[in-house]
Amino acid sequence: MTKSNDNRIILPEPTIRRLPWYLSYVRMLDHLHVEYVSSTQISKELNVQSSQIAKDLSFLNIRGKTRIGYEVKSLVSELEDFLGFNRHHDAVVIGTGSLGTALMQDHGLEHYGLNIVAGFDVRDEVIGKQLGGVPVFSISELEAWQAKHTIPIAILTVPVERAQECADLAIACGVTALWNFTPYRIKAPENVVIANTSIYAHLAIIYNRMQGQTT
Amino acid sequence: MTKSNDNRIILPEPTIRRLPWYLSYVRMLDHLHVEYVSSTQISKELNVQSSQIAKDLSFLNIRGKTRIGYEVKSLVSELEDFLGFNRHHDAVVIGTGSLGTALMQDHGLEHYGLNIVAGFDVRDEVIGKQLGGVPVFSISELEAWQAKHTIPIAILTVPVERAQECADLAIACGVTALWNFTPYRIKAPENVVIANTSIYAHLAIIYNRMQGQTT
Repeated sequence: MTKSNDNRIILPEPTIRRLPWYLSYVRMLDHLHVEYVSSTQISKELNVQSSQIAKDLSFLNIRGKTRIGYEVKSLVSELEDFLGFNRHHDAVVIGTGSLGTALMQDHGLEHYGLNIVAGFDVRDEVIGKQLGGVPVFSISELEAWQAKHTIPIAILTVPVERAQECADLAIACGVTALWNFTPYRIKAPENVVIANTSIYAHLAIIYNRMQGQTT
Repeated sequence: MTKSNDNRIILPEPTIRRLPWYLSYVRMLDHLHVEYVSSTQISKELNVQSSQIAKDLSFLNIRGKTRIGYEVKSLVSELEDFLGFNRHHDAVVIGTGSLGTALMQDHGLEHYGLNIVAGFDVRDEVIGKQLGGVPVFSISELEAWQAKHTIPIAILTVPVERAQECADLAIACGVTALWNFTPYRIKAPENVVIANTSIYAHLAIIYNRMQGQTT
């Protein structure tokens, strides 16, 4: 764990990966009107060691009670707050193909604090249209748009051979975080946040593990 | 590295995650008619140590030539072959909401060997329809469908509170690999392959890292 300039906590990535698991589980408990949950119970349900869970949750502003555990409602709101899911984070989509469009139409993302305000593309047939209620502009308008709106997050869903140039453009236009869905390994200045969601890598893992099973 | 029963190589996950980066890069070189590439060059481009690249590529049936490097065309086909991207892998989509539909419509996945043959849902308004040319059936028909077709991979794009029950159903119907897009931590027998593509976890990472930047 490190602390940034303003004393906010920069968590290790494995911890951040586990916290949304806990959240989706305790949200479900909350829907079922369960009031308390212990780390042992979370451990059994999610197959994570309970000592690890206690450690992960120690970053939050919440303490479990002996024998009773954590209050479910508090745990939901503390996790949402900590993960940033209950705040609005504006984003633009660059590349409104099938995946970009799906993200623009996925209202599920709103429940995780992501607010997609515009899409950008090079194809005349989508420019000027709306996708999932979100307007699509020409990529040539990105600079002027950003000068006005300064959206911090760009979601990159362009063809792989356009990945780096679109990333460069977005960064030049003031974007500070890139959510990269292309299999390309984007190069960017250190102060730009990059999250790679490489769905093709996951396919490779599935194929490789399945091969392993063949007897 | 371990070997499975049939002597196929089960690679460590970090290696499998890097191989698609190399592939997308050398595919691009191939399009540009570049004939040879060195691990130093790949290293500079992808920001991975060249000793690591040489080690990763040593799993493949290809050897670089001193001073010249790897032949690009051979590297592309060896990587595609090794990763399984040039073979057909049939899959069904369970949950044809916006993300499920996007995957069914994403012809990009075909280039990575994924062949989506059917979708399953509970909503009357989509059952019997086609999405991206793929037929959608009632989830109640999954068992009968699988008895006939025995599709090995199920893509799980259902609401989080349905994740475990749909996974259980798919496994009971003979699915051996689950590509889980829900934030739920699926429990499954050890012989079932599970790949978690947790896009919300990546959002949490972006938010957390961005907070860190605030000064």
